[in-house]
Amino acid sequence: MFLKNAWYVACTPDEIAQEPLGRTICGEAMVFYRAAGGAVAALEDFCPHRGAPLSLGFVRDGTLVCGYHGLEMGCHGKATGMPGQRVNGFPAVRSFPVIERYGFIWVWPGDAAADPAALHPLPWAEDPAWAYGGGLYHIRCDYRLMIDNLMDLTHETYVHASSIGQKEIDEAPPKTTSEGDEVVTSRFMENIMAPPFWRMALRGNGLADDVPVDRWQICRFSPPSHVMIEVGVAHAGHGGYHASAEHKAASVVVDFITPETEASIWYFWGMARNFRPDDAALTDQIREGQGKIFAEDLEMLERQQRNLEAWPQRKLLKLNIDAGGVLSRRVIDRLLASERGASANATQNAEA
Amino acid sequence: MFLKNAWYVACTPDEIAQEPLGRTICGEAMVFYRAAGGAVAALEDFCPHRGAPLSLGFVRDGTLVCGYHGLEMGCHGKATGMPGQRVNGFPAVRSFPVIERYGFIWVWPGDAAADPAALHPLPWAEDPAWAYGGGLYHIRCDYRLMIDNLMDLTHETYVHASSIGQKEIDEAPPKTTSEGDEVVTSRFMENIMAPPFWRMALRGNGLADDVPVDRWQICRFSPPSHVMIEVGVAHAGHGGYHASAEHKAASVVVDFITPETEASIWYFWGMARNFRPDDAALTDQIREGQGKIFAEDLEMLERQQRNLEAWPQRKLLKLNIDAGGVLSRRVIDRLLASERGASANATQNAEA
Amino acid sequence: MFLKNAWYVACTPDEIAQEPLGRTICGEAMVFYRAAGGAVAALEDFCPHRGAPLSLGFVRDGTLVCGYHGLEMGCHGKATGMPGQRVNGFPAVRSFPVIERYGFIWVWPGDAAADPAALHPLPWAEDPAWAYGGGLYHIRCDYRLMIDNLMDLTHETYVHASSIGQKEIDEAPPKTTSEGDEVVTSRFMENIMAPPFWRMALRGNGLADDVPVDRWQICRFSPPSHVMIEVGVAHAGHGGYHASAEHKAASVVVDFITPETEASIWYFWGMARNFRPDDAALTDQIREGQGKIFAEDLEMLERQQRNLEAWPQRKLLKLNIDAGGVLSRRVIDRLLASERGASANATQNAEA
Repeated sequence: MFLKNAWYVACTPDEIAQEPLGRTICGEAMVFYRAAGGAVAALEDFCPHRGAPLSLGFVRDGTLVCGYHGLEMGCHGKATGMPGQRVNGFPAVRSFPVIERYGFIWVWPGDAAADPAALHPLPWAEDPAWAYGGGLYHIRCDYRLMIDNLMDLTHETYVHASSIGQKEIDEAPPKTTSEGDEVVTSRFMENIMAPPFWRMALRGNGLADDVPVDRWQICRFSPPSHVMIEVGVAHAGHGGYHASAEHKAASVVVDFITPETEASIWYFWGMARNFRPDDAALTDQIREGQGKIFAEDLEMLERQQRNLEAWPQRKLLKLNIDAGGVLSRRVIDRLLASERGASANATQNAEA
Repeated sequence: MFLKNAWYVACTPDEIAQEPLGRTICGEAMVFYRAAGGAVAALEDFCPHRGAPLSLGFVRDGTLVCGYHGLEMGCHGKATGMPGQRVNGFPAVRSFPVIERYGFIWVWPGDAAADPAALHPLPWAEDPAWAYGGGLYHIRCDYRLMIDNLMDLTHETYVHASSIGQKEIDEAPPKTTSEGDEVVTSRFMENIMAPPFWRMALRGNGLADDVPVDRWQICRFSPPSHVMIEVGVAHAGHGGYHASAEHKAASVVVDFITPETEASIWYFWGMARNFRPDDAALTDQIREGQGKIFAEDLEMLERQQRNLEAWPQRKLLKLNIDAGGVLSRRVIDRLLASERGASANATQNAEA
Repeated sequence: MFLKNAWYVACTPDEIAQEPLGRTICGEAMVFYRAAGGAVAALEDFCPHRGAPLSLGFVRDGTLVCGYHGLEMGCHGKATGMPGQRVNGFPAVRSFPVIERYGFIWVWPGDAAADPAALHPLPWAEDPAWAYGGGLYHIRCDYRLMIDNLMDLTHETYVHASSIGQKEIDEAPPKTTSEGDEVVTSRFMENIMAPPFWRMALRGNGLADDVPVDRWQICRFSPPSHVMIEVGVAHAGHGGYHASAEHKAASVVVDFITPETEASIWYFWGMARNFRPDDAALTDQIREGQGKIFAEDLEMLERQQRNLEAWPQRKLLKLNIDAGGVLSRRVIDRLLASERGASANATQNAEA
């Protein structure tokens, strides 16, 4: 139950630098590689000759070569050659629209025409005042459980108690609103002491870490399953979220949640910041810290998934803190219904 | 096909000393923890908020706190608090009757009213003249295969050839009787040389290990799935089983077989002895020896289980040596029918 | 979908030298052991007493003894003894016809009468002018994918690029013919440089490895699933395949593909050669090299299997290079239909 006519992060450029990458996205087994001219191509990971995964092959001069018997595959899914064979009549495999931008490779797994304008904009990714570091986790859970997780940061107090959690999160009720297909849930905490991760960030930005701060978390869901979170702390009394740069450490937590199957995800996480963008050591330090923190969610999400599979009939609670996830699921459900309707119409028209 | 209205050993106190324990008993996913006042509680391992396993949480002042968003759970399965929330209307989760006694934590996984009088008595566990050591194995087999195993010690000759097995076991036919819901199968061997494990025990009790002994094995099945085995050797000519303490090394092999699922068990094994009860080093030595011996059964039981699953239509033989297991299964079947009948009546009455 | 009334390689003598061997062949769980007199026996791996796998037992004086309770099993599947028991009435388990010959133990998993004349002849295995070395791989794929693999050596260029592959294979179209139930596909390459594995073999045979050679590959499929491949290189200009011994390095690649289940195989691979047959170090060197090369196929075959399971409706291409596999499958299909017909007739006659 995921949207298919949408752009998902499929991989990062380093993952296809050496050889083709096989990855299942929204139930579609795909192979990603850099084709002639440098553009990334995504094809079904199935050689029309004997069904071998094309991702076990190699790229020669921008052509994907099957590693079993040498079929050469073009970037649109048509075989372009094979030693000793005429390939004109070979059946094609499916190709998927791909865009490389913002440091990610995005794929459109659905049947409808891909809309480049629908790509999620990441202005910071093209702004030299910003730096980005991130990673990838594979998690065996429904992608919506990860959306719930990120749209209710109350869990930081419990799952991430030693890094970004603090009791003041629990005490500050979030405010949640819908804006078209986006959902925003935000929480502001004033005049508190920063937790360890943010003390590290303050120091990283050359700021005192032992004075009271204002802290904010503004989580924004965008379909199909992206969550961007503005987070930060400012020395108290300087305007909080609106404080000028020299008083705060702020960043954007970046979460691209790409369904692999109905019950597993590729979770691309990272942090974009607009302080000390050229400090690569700081980027590494933040990435390492964030990676450890986000790894703490894995067991919880996987065990929650198994619990929900074991008790499928149980209704979960929808508290105020859950509003972000609840409204996000409502957006997804509405778009899913629309996608299904469009698909049914397309089938009717084709049959008429 | 296991009895649910019965007391099963769920865990030992050390398993819940640091944090909550998640364990499935008779198909019920449970969390065990020590609640306020020190009593052990058992609840469904499912947080009513978002379905997280409560066993991933922690205990604070005797209250189980969900490790995802901080819901506080009372020992009867009703939420007692949650930061920023009113919990009165939260749905309850199931709680299970628990008794802590004899060094074990017992749980009653069924729906019928728990009967404290039905707890299996272990008088030796409260007698300072006795010592106990044991352990826990997880085995992927039907619990009845383990009952069969323990009610037919002929297998010692083959599975445990180097420790407690000896050919004289094969040569001494067992005698099996039913006594109400209990089944007793016993075997006596006279004037034989003790096998290695018993030589160790004789020495541990300060007795010569190189003289003929009389050896006995008296296996007692009690529902739902407990098997206590009186075992021992006495220097020959002193009355065997009835020999006075200075001529023998005797003990009780303790087996609590707790079904996890239809095809897996938690096997609590141990040995209770009434010689040198204060000799902790001897307790450790016996536990280590017994642990190695009992581990030899695992592969056999798991492979037997897989064979029976592959050949479900085959009838097994019921020889005289199998009488203990056969009669034990008869008791279980009778009690299962009774449990089902009672359950059906309860449903009828509720509907009437 | 494999033939059952046929001889398959089940194991090699060293595998049963110490203890019984449990192995599933064509879906039948079997135990292999050396019975009294030295002949190998194959029985269902199921003790009629309590269903334990007989392969967990041991052999005592040529009798298979169950490792659980000591039932003694005769080589025809009838219990011959058990301590304290009369075994006459015990149900038998199935025994399977076995032949030990050519360095292999062969089994006939089907119900029809085993035909010793149907054993695949391996004359080189009884000829002192020849030496053999080989190994065993377990692969999770349909046995027919391995037949395809071996009947189309085009894949050497891609899967085995660093050892036996070379571009000239692609450039030499194979010729494929059927001869009764056998299929032969052959390829000849003239005046080429030998690839690394064959240079090693030339040196092993005392021949220059830096001069042009003629190379050949003659693959012969025989039912149920054996593929023997004559391979070799001769110094160019000496007659190629027909060159006399002092000008060539030639051998037979031996492939016995024994289905375990519908989707897994026991793959017995090896190489028979008629040069330097007494050079055990050379045998080891060739075995090691071949083992590494053939291991390169495993991932491809297992991933191809998973791809075909995921896309069961897709038709694969049947190019000229695939003719060997295609014709082999045709033979198998014909024999399968015949086997099914014979089985249906047998049932009818039994019911009449």
